[in-house]
Amino acid sequence: MRILGLDPSLSSTGWGVIEVEGNRMRYVADGFIKTDPKLPLAERLALIYDTLRQVIETYHPDEASIEQVFLNDNPKSTIKLGMARGVVMMMPALYHIPVVEYEPNKIKKAVVGVGHAQKSQVEAMVKILLPNCQPKNADSSDALAMAITHNTYRKARALGF
Amino acid sequence: MRILGLDPSLSSTGWGVIEVEGNRMRYVADGFIKTDPKLPLAERLALIYDTLRQVIETYHPDEASIEQVFLNDNPKSTIKLGMARGVVMMMPALYHIPVVEYEPNKIKKAVVGVGHAQKSQVEAMVKILLPNCQPKNADSSDALAMAITHNTYRKARALGF
Repeated sequence: MRILGLDPSLSSTGWGVIEVEGNRMRYVADGFIKTDPKLPLAERLALIYDTLRQVIETYHPDEASIEQVFLNDNPKSTIKLGMARGVVMMMPALYHIPVVEYEPNKIKKAVVGVGHAQKSQVEAMVKILLPNCQPKNADSSDALAMAITHNTYRKARALGF
Repeated sequence: MRILGLDPSLSSTGWGVIEVEGNRMRYVADGFIKTDPKLPLAERLALIYDTLRQVIETYHPDEASIEQVFLNDNPKSTIKLGMARGVVMMMPALYHIPVVEYEPNKIKKAVVGVGHAQKSQVEAMVKILLPNCQPKNADSSDALAMAITHNTYRKARALGF
């Protein structure tokens, strides 16, 4: 089965797909969606939509996961992040793919083993857990970490934790 | 030409369509999209998407307008409003329909004539400006007000203001 990890932001949304077979995890694809800040907001959101539609129709994920939102002190930034996040979170639902949210410390715990791990440790672990994977950038690496996180918690839930 | 007015919110997004011919404005349709708070967030967003797609494909608006965001002090509410707003604002862009944002006081000025008008005055004016229109609820009335606002500023811009 395939998991799509998503790391939403208006300027650069990361995505990553992994394949899971029993206890094995395999890298499938990753990427990021850069949007031009000079474009109208509606067009930037439409670009995120169009790209994620292609990703879902190309890789056919069965489940999806997304980072639980980081609340900013600046309401203008919060609303912009919210707008991108709304589009990103809706995409799997349009294909009847369930989406699960995970808090940042749960992601660190699932990938590195400790909730207070640093960003660089998460990036290093993604490469170790997914051999032959060179994430395209930090956003797509975060998205792959999200997919790994979902796999970890899925397995834990299946074991009754 | 037809204008689609939009009043986004996660719980109830309003929409309204008017037809403009020269100096005449005519009511075409209005409605609201209630989403069940018990449903997963992604499914609520997908319902907004599906309904607005039907609205756009039924009424073929040429231009769209949306209220400029009301920033809430509560970051959790702001992010939720942002998520709904992101989906709503993206919809016209998917059909290459331009979307213009208006601040609340500009809407009041365009519809009632004064920037500090009350909500009830805006609702009353919508019914006067669009004869034979009984808005379905306050959200769809606000969306119609948004469409009227866009028509007012369009005309002013055409006159060189």
